[in-house]
Amino acid sequence: MKRYFLEVAYKGTNYHGWQIQENAGSVQDTLQRALSKILRRPIQVMGSGRTDTGVHALQQFAHFDIDELGASSDFLKRVNAVLPSDIGILDVREVAPDAHARFDATWRSYRYVIGLRKDPFEDGLVWRCFYELDVPQMNEAANLLLRFDDFESFSRVKTEATHFRCKIKSAKWEQKPNHLIFHITANRFLRGMVRAIVGTLVLVGRGRMTLEEFEGIIKAKRRVEAGSSAPPQGLFLSEVLYPVHIFV
Amino acid sequence: MKRYFLEVAYKGTNYHGWQIQENAGSVQDTLQRALSKILRRPIQVMGSGRTDTGVHALQQFAHFDIDELGASSDFLKRVNAVLPSDIGILDVREVAPDAHARFDATWRSYRYVIGLRKDPFEDGLVWRCFYELDVPQMNEAANLLLRFDDFESFSRVKTEATHFRCKIKSAKWEQKPNHLIFHITANRFLRGMVRAIVGTLVLVGRGRMTLEEFEGIIKAKRRVEAGSSAPPQGLFLSEVLYPVHIFV
Repeated sequence: MKRYFLEVAYKGTNYHGWQIQENAGSVQDTLQRALSKILRRPIQVMGSGRTDTGVHALQQFAHFDIDELGASSDFLKRVNAVLPSDIGILDVREVAPDAHARFDATWRSYRYVIGLRKDPFEDGLVWRCFYELDVPQMNEAANLLLRFDDFESFSRVKTEATHFRCKIKSAKWEQKPNHLIFHITANRFLRGMVRAIVGTLVLVGRGRMTLEEFEGIIKAKRRVEAGSSAPPQGLFLSEVLYPVHIFV
Repeated sequence: MKRYFLEVAYKGTNYHGWQIQENAGSVQDTLQRALSKILRRPIQVMGSGRTDTGVHALQQFAHFDIDELGASSDFLKRVNAVLPSDIGILDVREVAPDAHARFDATWRSYRYVIGLRKDPFEDGLVWRCFYELDVPQMNEAANLLLRFDDFESFSRVKTEATHFRCKIKSAKWEQKPNHLIFHITANRFLRGMVRAIVGTLVLVGRGRMTLEEFEGIIKAKRRVEAGSSAPPQGLFLSEVLYPVHIFV
């Protein structure tokens, strides 16, 4: 039995998130069906993490096991032909038999895209925001995140998480002519965390919340303190990093 | 009465083209409804030209008349809020009372985008092409277009056109890492012309047609000689130029 890592990208608009759910189409389920079809046996995949309904991935990884995959270029061609147009497999590579897409991931990065101007080609891919936003102030607040290691205030209340500790490596807003992009990298993310952080940082950018209040929210460790979540369509899982030793 | 030019962009996926049709949603109709709603009187618009079902526009122009529009920034905000997310008004400006979006346009440019790699975010925005294409040969053929001035071979058979003369200024394929983009500029285009040209140039690129055969098709002036049309989703009206004297 060999283990393979799939590098996957998807537009999340038409899916109820990554994770398989009853009575709702998920990316994981669509992927498993396509793999099972072309490999002619039941295939299960384990993703690096979940994404919510409507959230996209520029780079997601998932592992699965099979005796022998054959030529990877041939496999990629066949699986992409079977998959719908909004899911693409970018690459496949063999990994160590005990490599794990979720547990071995060391850093995960998300980006959140705010659209400052109406663009007919970006529907479902940005949060169209009409507020005047103070970007330097939002970056001051984003910097405060790096000083803390418990983010219960930005976690969904219903969660399977046993603790709320995350090591945030970087968190920064990038100003572009027609977009404002939030980049955040951490060792792990809690459910709904990026969208809750973005929603709260936008309150800071609108002048509705001071830096002291933002810091107080982090310290409070209660979700109810933070701002409402930014909508899912602006969120992209953008990069997942692994240690090189997992690759054979 | 004042005349205004609207600069419009739209994703054509959900529309039956620009032109108003019975029993089918068009961009023109959607635009007229939005304008009539916010300006509180029946507004009709005249576009620079038609685009077919599923074809997009990065820059289309249309004129309409009204006594007084008021502040353009306020107008843009209101009309974009009423329009659906796949149509955007980029700008509005007053023009001479006899300026005409269709008859005054001097050059029109289209681009046609071929996708060389599956990209989940490009659905409906490229023609996903699996052929090996000889791009230099396709550019040789594209160059031949500049030597002729009658393109009946690339016109739809059912047409209201009284003649088939077009002055093609430039026609060129651009090779990008994951895309092949055809840029073409002419004083006018016949119905279905760009898609028929692209479909035939792809035959050249696949080695199914020689340069001599391609030239013979242009000379034949019969649509049946050319290759089948490339699908609409890769086509974008990209630029329309006007002489400066029409602007007040």
